[in-house]
Amino acid sequence: MLRRSEDIPAMKHSSESLRILVCNDDGIDAPGLYELVQHVKKLGEVTVVAPHRQQSAVGHAITINQPLRVKKFEKNGKFFGYAVEGTPADCVKLALRSLLDHKPDLILSGINHGSNTAVNIIYSGTVSGATEGTVFGIPSIAFSLTTYDEPDFRFAGKFAAKLAKLVAAKGLPKGVLLNVNIPAVQEKAIRGVRITRQGKSWWNDAFEVRQDPINQQYYWLTGTLNVVDTDDDIDQVAVTDNYISITPLHYDLTDQEMVKELKGWGVDGLL
Amino acid sequence: MLRRSEDIPAMKHSSESLRILVCNDDGIDAPGLYELVQHVKKLGEVTVVAPHRQQSAVGHAITINQPLRVKKFEKNGKFFGYAVEGTPADCVKLALRSLLDHKPDLILSGINHGSNTAVNIIYSGTVSGATEGTVFGIPSIAFSLTTYDEPDFRFAGKFAAKLAKLVAAKGLPKGVLLNVNIPAVQEKAIRGVRITRQGKSWWNDAFEVRQDPINQQYYWLTGTLNVVDTDDDIDQVAVTDNYISITPLHYDLTDQEMVKELKGWGVDGLL
Repeated sequence: MLRRSEDIPAMKHSSESLRILVCNDDGIDAPGLYELVQHVKKLGEVTVVAPHRQQSAVGHAITINQPLRVKKFEKNGKFFGYAVEGTPADCVKLALRSLLDHKPDLILSGINHGSNTAVNIIYSGTVSGATEGTVFGIPSIAFSLTTYDEPDFRFAGKFAAKLAKLVAAKGLPKGVLLNVNIPAVQEKAIRGVRITRQGKSWWNDAFEVRQDPINQQYYWLTGTLNVVDTDDDIDQVAVTDNYISITPLHYDLTDQEMVKELKGWGVDGLL
Repeated sequence: MLRRSEDIPAMKHSSESLRILVCNDDGIDAPGLYELVQHVKKLGEVTVVAPHRQQSAVGHAITINQPLRVKKFEKNGKFFGYAVEGTPADCVKLALRSLLDHKPDLILSGINHGSNTAVNIIYSGTVSGATEGTVFGIPSIAFSLTTYDEPDFRFAGKFAAKLAKLVAAKGLPKGVLLNVNIPAVQEKAIRGVRITRQGKSWWNDAFEVRQDPINQQYYWLTGTLNVVDTDDDIDQVAVTDNYISITPLHYDLTDQEMVKELKGWGVDGLL
């Protein structure tokens, strides 16, 4: 059985009953995914295809050297979704090419337990799920709740469903996804929504060096986010100010300025 | 033992004796890495920190949920480098924060066995190694040889060393890395060097569905690259024309056009 793009029916743009694919990187049993599904299933038909276990910071990894296994996953005694032994990008590829018999109207990734702002975006499995949807030309949104403490996803789920409905109605340009970070505060403390840019804050990484029980050394990554941005329209600043941050992202990584510069380097002379 | 950025000495800009960190995603015993090291060690002091085994298509994954172990790896009876049970980004972080006692002048990733053009860039562990170097503010270059057949890395290694020397002399702007794809042809068939943009070619993915020996179903990713670009200055077109492709990349993913558009959507009304 092989499916190719020709097999996938053209996208439909009805906002009345949407077909929505939901993935994440925290794993299929994560509460953020469950809360998202509870809210967006009011918009139409939802299919969950998510990693069988936690895949945080997996970046845009795909599995090419080993097989992917898929199991049906139940929640409260009922079929909830497909659990894939793979990454978020694997889940989206497998959903679109093998598991679904239709092309979804929207792909939603999350709700992640933890912020995906600034440099975190390049490490994020949650963003990667939405990026993969965008590669397939499907409007895609990544949602994250900005806490690593005990999370309450209820407000985030409610907002996610409203934004999903708006995006389904408006569409997104080819190659553009939305990265949404929602402050982990009481609903009444949310001050608004800001359209933002990716910040330049970076991790001041450190490795703890430890000994295992048989005296072998190992390293464990730790660190603190070095916040360098102050402008209101930066993702990290917005969430710190208790605004929901919506950042449009693309994956065209060319640095156009440097293209011009490099043309003056005379690189042909290296041959 | 914790190291932080304050501990890392300021970068030096001598082109006489460079300190170079080399990583890859094919693993520390890959011939492309070995060939790169043979050529660049003429430029100065080389430290190899690379994954202990193949990490292709691992994207910009980092390991946060488990420990990293490091082993000294020998080649021909001599110390060759540090083998890390992790991803290319892990290798660069660990090198810069724990293994090296200096900040390298350059980070080189590769030489990858296989092309990293167009959409492949977002899946590429090779590019990820260089991206991580750029996050740390160190001029970084990813090298790939565009074949999946039996490779000959000799010309690619020679060119890589020349470009590395030029980049060390010129520097790179903050946040910009170079992604270099070298056609896998005889040296005399190379027609030149082109400064290029990331192409929009994408994988027409397919999953083969197979049965394992105990009749459990599994999926295996396959597919063909759907080449959609024709302009000479696109990475994939350049290598097909037997030109070396140099694409400057950054990881600021904000889509500026869409920022303007979204500001007209009235998203505050969603609250």
